[in-house]
Amino acid sequence: MKIDVLSLFPDMFTGVFGSSILKQAQDRNAVSLNVVDFRQYADNKHDKVDDYPYGGGAGMVLRAQPIFDAVEDLRKRNNTKPRVILLCPQGERYSQQKAEELAEEEHLILLCGHYEGYDERVRKHLVTDEISIGDYVLTGGEVGAMVVVDSVTRLLPGVLGNAESAITDSFSTGLLEHPHYTRPAEFRGMKVPDILLSGHHKRIEEWRERESLRRTWLRRPDLLERQDLNERQKEWIREFERNG
Amino acid sequence: MKIDVLSLFPDMFTGVFGSSILKQAQDRNAVSLNVVDFRQYADNKHDKVDDYPYGGGAGMVLRAQPIFDAVEDLRKRNNTKPRVILLCPQGERYSQQKAEELAEEEHLILLCGHYEGYDERVRKHLVTDEISIGDYVLTGGEVGAMVVVDSVTRLLPGVLGNAESAITDSFSTGLLEHPHYTRPAEFRGMKVPDILLSGHHKRIEEWRERESLRRTWLRRPDLLERQDLNERQKEWIREFERNG
Repeated sequence: MKIDVLSLFPDMFTGVFGSSILKQAQDRNAVSLNVVDFRQYADNKHDKVDDYPYGGGAGMVLRAQPIFDAVEDLRKRNNTKPRVILLCPQGERYSQQKAEELAEEEHLILLCGHYEGYDERVRKHLVTDEISIGDYVLTGGEVGAMVVVDSVTRLLPGVLGNAESAITDSFSTGLLEHPHYTRPAEFRGMKVPDILLSGHHKRIEEWRERESLRRTWLRRPDLLERQDLNERQKEWIREFERNG
Repeated sequence: MKIDVLSLFPDMFTGVFGSSILKQAQDRNAVSLNVVDFRQYADNKHDKVDDYPYGGGAGMVLRAQPIFDAVEDLRKRNNTKPRVILLCPQGERYSQQKAEELAEEEHLILLCGHYEGYDERVRKHLVTDEISIGDYVLTGGEVGAMVVVDSVTRLLPGVLGNAESAITDSFSTGLLEHPHYTRPAEFRGMKVPDILLSGHHKRIEEWRERESLRRTWLRRPDLLERQDLNERQKEWIREFERNG
């Protein structure tokens, strides 16, 4: 997969794109990450990418021309029909489902805005998707682009090793994860639950399933509404409700 | 405000913490950002921070000891009672309200996990808050920590200039933003709405309020449920409904 990121602050990506799983994924040629400063596409002499809003008001608006030209150049050079994704607070809320959908594409272009926002013509006539990573205000789209790149890349074939991909992540199972413990069995008086030291694999599996369900019931009951619970799980939930 | 970030990949933060508003905020002494590799607190000879999970299973679990010792050292050195925040998928969903709450603190410590997760004793006995930035799977807590640092820092006094703070961001008004346009009035045949070129400030304001409401109604009806709409806004919504 090819991912181009358009940003006015390309240096922001160096650390994240050069570490951990994203570095490995590039070394293994599972993904090619490219950050483009779209200021270089500005057609005026001062490389100006923003201008005052029509109708007045505070803040500067990103001009359409540099963004249209950058996207078209990247399309032509790669000879692809990329998804063009705007990171913005007005977008659809990003989810694991959306990450899975994007992981099927061959080419993504991510647009990171700054200032007051984009000229609306970018939104209406250039982009295919608008994504918001959450209901909070950030300075620009860069950290959102990192979220998309990380969550998509780790789904690509050959990126995660067997051990890592075997992990049952939250949001892919639909329930929050159960608690984990590692050595020592007692740390400053705080003990590991006996069941985990018992060696009874079947009872351990049951404890984990139950604690995963309990945590979801306590913290994210909205996730349970989408689950098809079995009889045992329903019984456990009645028990949680009885015990508060 | 002081923010310490505990991570096994400190280099990931260089770009984001060294650019744009976060750089300015540090230059103005509004915030002090410090990234700590908590591997240096490991009390064994190989600086080992993870170990196998009790009860078996795939993945490695972060040990309690290095994290407890790192947090205690930072608490002592700063002589503060910091909020200790775990970035994890099991946490409460992050929101602008939470950012505003955290912006009132004098010291935050953010813990970025990797691998299968944290020893549960960290969660139960050390942290004060658990935050998830959204329902998607990321490689580690680092990008989540960047979200928290950026969203909190831009709320601190003296960080945003007048022009920037005058901007009515999405999520702080409760509605999505209206469309923006800048020059040229026509770009490749795509025109700016006449109203924005009219010079009628009152009508422009009304158009913006209406388009902001329309966009929220179309894309994020859940946000409208929390709004106290006035009569004119209710009438507009009835009109949107009539016209589909």
